[in-house]
Amino acid sequence: MKLNVPEIIRRKRDGERLGDDELRALIGEYTADRIPDYQMAALLMAIFFCGLDTAELAVWTDAMTRSGAVMRHDRVRGPKVDKHSTGGVGDKISLCLAPAVAACGVPVPMISGRGLGHTGGTLDKLESIPGFRVDLEPAAASAQLERLGLFLIGQTEDVAPADRRLYALRDVTGTVESIPLIASSIMSKKLAEGIDALVLDVKVGEGAFMETAARARELARTIIDIGAASGVAVRALLTDMGAPIGRTVGNSLEAREAIDVLRGGGPSDTIALTIELGAEMLVLGKAAKELEAGRASVRRVLADGTALALFARVIEAQRGDPRVCDDPSRLPVAAHRDPLAARRRGYVTGIRPRAVAMAALEVGAGRRRKEDDIDPSAGVELLVARGDLVEAGAPLAALHHGGSGEGEAMRLLESAFEIGDAPPASTALVIDRL
Amino acid sequence: MKLNVPEIIRRKRDGERLGDDELRALIGEYTADRIPDYQMAALLMAIFFCGLDTAELAVWTDAMTRSGAVMRHDRVRGPKVDKHSTGGVGDKISLCLAPAVAACGVPVPMISGRGLGHTGGTLDKLESIPGFRVDLEPAAASAQLERLGLFLIGQTEDVAPADRRLYALRDVTGTVESIPLIASSIMSKKLAEGIDALVLDVKVGEGAFMETAARARELARTIIDIGAASGVAVRALLTDMGAPIGRTVGNSLEAREAIDVLRGGGPSDTIALTIELGAEMLVLGKAAKELEAGRASVRRVLADGTALALFARVIEAQRGDPRVCDDPSRLPVAAHRDPLAARRRGYVTGIRPRAVAMAALEVGAGRRRKEDDIDPSAGVELLVARGDLVEAGAPLAALHHGGSGEGEAMRLLESAFEIGDAPPASTALVIDRL
Repeated sequence: MKLNVPEIIRRKRDGERLGDDELRALIGEYTADRIPDYQMAALLMAIFFCGLDTAELAVWTDAMTRSGAVMRHDRVRGPKVDKHSTGGVGDKISLCLAPAVAACGVPVPMISGRGLGHTGGTLDKLESIPGFRVDLEPAAASAQLERLGLFLIGQTEDVAPADRRLYALRDVTGTVESIPLIASSIMSKKLAEGIDALVLDVKVGEGAFMETAARARELARTIIDIGAASGVAVRALLTDMGAPIGRTVGNSLEAREAIDVLRGGGPSDTIALTIELGAEMLVLGKAAKELEAGRASVRRVLADGTALALFARVIEAQRGDPRVCDDPSRLPVAAHRDPLAARRRGYVTGIRPRAVAMAALEVGAGRRRKEDDIDPSAGVELLVARGDLVEAGAPLAALHHGGSGEGEAMRLLESAFEIGDAPPASTALVIDRL
Repeated sequence: MKLNVPEIIRRKRDGERLGDDELRALIGEYTADRIPDYQMAALLMAIFFCGLDTAELAVWTDAMTRSGAVMRHDRVRGPKVDKHSTGGVGDKISLCLAPAVAACGVPVPMISGRGLGHTGGTLDKLESIPGFRVDLEPAAASAQLERLGLFLIGQTEDVAPADRRLYALRDVTGTVESIPLIASSIMSKKLAEGIDALVLDVKVGEGAFMETAARARELARTIIDIGAASGVAVRALLTDMGAPIGRTVGNSLEAREAIDVLRGGGPSDTIALTIELGAEMLVLGKAAKELEAGRASVRRVLADGTALALFARVIEAQRGDPRVCDDPSRLPVAAHRDPLAARRRGYVTGIRPRAVAMAALEVGAGRRRKEDDIDPSAGVELLVARGDLVEAGAPLAALHHGGSGEGEAMRLLESAFEIGDAPPASTALVIDRL
């Protein structure tokens, strides 16, 4: 199809619908380097303002998915279900959730990403486990899914190359914050996993990509619509990101915390998120009739060690050291652990996730740019939670670092804590379900 | 100044004002190839949607002007005044207007452009005069302005290079139709001429860039504001472009018609436009106290041969053959002149300018792409005007061509004529003055 790209840009700019063939050709030609970045940048900005309707977005996303390889798991029985989180601070839920759900009998083909900026990435947390490999070949991953019910891998070059190019362009052209573009980016990769259903964890709040519940709900509805058009059932939870998830931010610290949850321990919010998201996945995966039964199943596999045992087998299958499951001290440990003391007595009324994340970034736990190296052992350990009463001088947090960036990190970390005279109102972890 | 371009794009996209330094740096860095096209394309689309306010636009335009050479005419006394038309079909007004105004004592430093698509360009019309050169050096042009009160030249690479780059980018990214971007493009070049005042002819109607009077008025007001910020007085006329101007469309045909006007003849609309625009220029140039006196002066220099004599001297100074003024048959003549006959008896209720222009384009009078060659002798000669009563079989127009494209051109030309049973309502030539 011969495209008149300036004319297509004008039509989208003027609020018109684009045709299915046009949308597919735009994605195809752009991925094949036959549409220049400057035209795609203008089109993306026009989409930022004028959007894509449900039907346009379904085609646009499908074209992005088909720009690369799409996995099939023909030998894996039953519905395959994954979870996607829009990204938070301290979000290590995938590491405990995926083994728990797989242990309940629902296959989980999980492809994750790396951290960038203030949000962490599941791959980085997995790779803090010594030896763990996230670069399985598709056939090997599918075979592992059949055998263990779970793989935890990274996105290869083959998966949705259109998304990789579009995302890189959006990042430098001020077109990231567009609901249809965010939704299509997420779903193009998820649909390439060969899933039948998806649970979406849309984080809401200061530490999240979506700062308001209204925007989060709009994103969730958009993704549900894309899923419906592709035959993938999507359930979405809007969850609170007003404080970091759990007590740790940083890769090996978070892996350790996830193992705590798989051992039946861990912080209450992390356990609760695992149970809530897990129950949704079990219902979608037909392993539970309703949520309450799903919750009970997840609780059981966390309590009886089944989920931890499965995680150990997956680690071993992916060449990692499974002994971390019994002995988390085998995970990388930072050279320094500096405490942060409370300046005054009072209630912890807030722990600002973005400031905690920036402190972790400062000591090397994350990346400013894609090409940056990270320090798997660096990060922040929170020693108090929102609502706790602390005495002046009591430790609020500990900074784990290798001896660089700790000065600025400590200042950022201190700025994260809000101490007041009265305890804060309690907040709901799950804000809404769609 | 270190620019965070994605952040600037986001701020404009979200409706914020950009700072003076930011605007200047954006233009400077883009022109110096230090901002990639894809970022500028996204910014231009954000400007399409969110605009630039009066103060932002003044700085943006000034930066575009200063991206290149700005002429000074220190030795030329009195206010220097130019005219700019937003481009119409058959618009040869500059060729008769500029000599007339200069003959009345107001210096006219006129830099014009070439035709592209359905609109013609003054440079192409001038170059149909054998030998005429439009590529004068700035110093030579300024000296000619001092001596003769007029130069008629083309835009060199030195004039507003930022505009050249931005225009090329807008053309392929669907961001042409933005009032602030159109206004800054026009004014960046006009301000580089070293003018004190400008008369703007905003064409309105089917054959024009601005299809509605509301858009034309908005463009005029925006240009008036930019002028005010730069100390250049701008008067704007909105004029009707519902039919071609005069009786000819095509380069040597139009040059000949302009000479007719300078000889005291020519079609009434072309004369009227020359007088109205000329009177405004004379008032701005302090050579007339008010419009009526200005009109009288223009009429006089057209009637007594002064304007024609000056045009001949300018042609000679720019190496053209001045004998065309007395003997227009020295202009290029097409090999073929095919008449178009009326299919029915009736009143000419409309002559659609775009169809006439496309017919002329088809026989080589214009360019589809910048790099196309043109045939100076090709074009359309209208033999009737709107309102005329014609008999079946009577000639409506003649197509001048060199033997290629005439079939399609004739079909287009025929489609341009609307013949009805009743005479059309009369239309005003000057729709509004600002």
